[in-house]
Amino acid sequence: MASEKRLEVVTCTAPVNIAVIKYWGKRDEELILPINSSLSVTLHQDQLKTTTTAAINRDFTEDRIWLNGREEDVGQPRLQACLREIRRLARKRRSDGHEDPLPLSLSYKVHVASVNNFPTGAGLASSAAGYACLAYALAQVYGVESDLSEVARRGSGSACRSLYGGFVEWQMGERADGKDSIARQVAPESHWPELRVLVLVVSTERKPTGSTVGMQTSVETSALLRFRAEALVPARMAEMTRCIRERDFQAFGQLTMKDSNQFHATCMDTFPPISYLSDTSRRVIHLVHLFNAHHGQTKVAYTFDAGANAVIFTLDDTVAEFAAAVRHSFPPESNGDKFLKGLPVEPVPLSDELKAALGMDPTPGGIKYIIATQVGPGPQVLDDPGAHLLGPDGLPKAAA
Amino acid sequence: MASEKRLEVVTCTAPVNIAVIKYWGKRDEELILPINSSLSVTLHQDQLKTTTTAAINRDFTEDRIWLNGREEDVGQPRLQACLREIRRLARKRRSDGHEDPLPLSLSYKVHVASVNNFPTGAGLASSAAGYACLAYALAQVYGVESDLSEVARRGSGSACRSLYGGFVEWQMGERADGKDSIARQVAPESHWPELRVLVLVVSTERKPTGSTVGMQTSVETSALLRFRAEALVPARMAEMTRCIRERDFQAFGQLTMKDSNQFHATCMDTFPPISYLSDTSRRVIHLVHLFNAHHGQTKVAYTFDAGANAVIFTLDDTVAEFAAAVRHSFPPESNGDKFLKGLPVEPVPLSDELKAALGMDPTPGGIKYIIATQVGPGPQVLDDPGAHLLGPDGLPKAAA
Repeated sequence: MASEKRLEVVTCTAPVNIAVIKYWGKRDEELILPINSSLSVTLHQDQLKTTTTAAINRDFTEDRIWLNGREEDVGQPRLQACLREIRRLARKRRSDGHEDPLPLSLSYKVHVASVNNFPTGAGLASSAAGYACLAYALAQVYGVESDLSEVARRGSGSACRSLYGGFVEWQMGERADGKDSIARQVAPESHWPELRVLVLVVSTERKPTGSTVGMQTSVETSALLRFRAEALVPARMAEMTRCIRERDFQAFGQLTMKDSNQFHATCMDTFPPISYLSDTSRRVIHLVHLFNAHHGQTKVAYTFDAGANAVIFTLDDTVAEFAAAVRHSFPPESNGDKFLKGLPVEPVPLSDELKAALGMDPTPGGIKYIIATQVGPGPQVLDDPGAHLLGPDGLPKAAA
Repeated sequence: MASEKRLEVVTCTAPVNIAVIKYWGKRDEELILPINSSLSVTLHQDQLKTTTTAAINRDFTEDRIWLNGREEDVGQPRLQACLREIRRLARKRRSDGHEDPLPLSLSYKVHVASVNNFPTGAGLASSAAGYACLAYALAQVYGVESDLSEVARRGSGSACRSLYGGFVEWQMGERADGKDSIARQVAPESHWPELRVLVLVVSTERKPTGSTVGMQTSVETSALLRFRAEALVPARMAEMTRCIRERDFQAFGQLTMKDSNQFHATCMDTFPPISYLSDTSRRVIHLVHLFNAHHGQTKVAYTFDAGANAVIFTLDDTVAEFAAAVRHSFPPESNGDKFLKGLPVEPVPLSDELKAALGMDPTPGGIKYIIATQVGPGPQVLDDPGAHLLGPDGLPKAAA
């Protein structure tokens, strides 16, 4: 068969997701099973995405991987778990009697190259998009069509939520083997077209505690985290699902903020305590509450992951005014960079009333820039062969 | 009787206390009854104290009060509650048949003057020392000898813990009328002579949320606070009492830090969230954990109240080295002020190993100064008539 000799190659993209009901803590470190369900919004890939090319060939002598142009150790346990899991699914599919267009591919080694379209080191969590994209690309080359939650999850828990567009829940499941710990779409990306997302990239010098080690310490030491996971999250999942189904922004925004705060509270209750929020993060929180108080309603909501960057949810009619409020409170330092990236945001003047209501001392340079984006679709296969990150020789193209 | 005409005047001092099991939240706003018991260390008055003079005279036409030389509104509800309560206790005492050296004093108006020996606006909570001192001074002039917990508590909850020296618990009580919500000494100030306290005064520009409003919002909105108060604090009170009784510094320090962190966690879980810790506070937390890790044991512990200042507990053999570590991490800005105040601290050089272990970028000026102090006694009556803050005319002396 001709297909046996040629390079099987596919290039995919996958989105970043941001949790509005937070995942923090595993009940099984090996299988990456969470202590509570979580729910996220998939961000649009026009602004933030990972692109991954996977290639298999019978002449490859070993699995290899390049991230942002640099070869990484393919032996790291999480990468190995993903590869093992995808090959297990491919084997299972074949033994289930499905036709297999790539009969020998299971024994082939794979080359993977992956890049992000957003700056690394800006504190934008890239592992979820990265492992979702890896799982999706591997599934293409190995001909796997089943649910990829477990493949992605074994790389990074929250990666399973990046397998779908729109609004996605990761059901914690109950089984010890994790087979029911899967991601599921709550509503598609077309469901709430007015929803907008602003990523406020905060200037920060300190490298925060990694989330893997952080959540492990939290599970071991925080009684508040245990209580949250068992007693509080189930009701919050149900309420958040309702907010999204009914497009109830007021309730959606409030619960999003409360859940972010509670997650950071459990980090503080960890011993030694973990602090992801900086003084600038706290100023953003204060700004959002002042902005909402001025309007007499929740028009804007913040959420923070394991870092100082703020992610803001709002509706399209409020983006311009809130972006102006951010620029007012955090005047950009003139370094030639664009302050507003992503979706176009019309510049509007702030009213004197709002300026007075914000009444904060400005913090110049506190926010490096804003990325304006929206809800987006799940992973995609790119048809354009020019998009491949690996050349015909199976090595990264020079440009990568 | 001659005593009817002369000015009855007494001057007292009372200490600051710092909680190691935190009080946050009331179950009764009017009576100031807490949702959990708390436990504190009384700081020595040589470094931090309030001095209060109370005078009664039948010629006074109204109750009046001066704080740090400025007359304040005596009509504020908490002051009124204290005055009402002390007069009720005095009336009760008389009706119980005790001899009364001041037969008409119950109808007399009172003048009160109060000063702190520490800078206001440094974020050092003065209300506990202030209301304890007021209660104690009023008890002298009105001839009240019963437990003053309720009088002080009605001014400021934690003030009842400043009525005793050493280690003091405020039992939350169960009764609706609060009669069993009282302070009690766990161990006297002589119990643990090696214990030392360093108050790290943090430079901060923002005025934080007041604790009265803050804890009210927390009780209304934080499910984690409710859980902490009901499910976690009782065991922590018992364990902290054991640590103190056995002078077990390792366990005392760890629980002190954990309880401070949990209190700040519940503040973060409040909606809108409350942040008392600044980036500098967080750097102090990090410094303490690095210092302890270097020594392989808990030699130093931090606790933070409703503000950015750190209070450090350690033993006398560690004070000099930790003070040097603070000076290393927060080099004082040369403004002529002394960096180390209070008890003398011998300057020692930091070992290169410790410097390497701390490995932090220094934050010049982050800490304004350190007050070194120790465990101290409860309120005192001053015998020296020259100490009175009120002159023979019942008005503040010019110097006050």
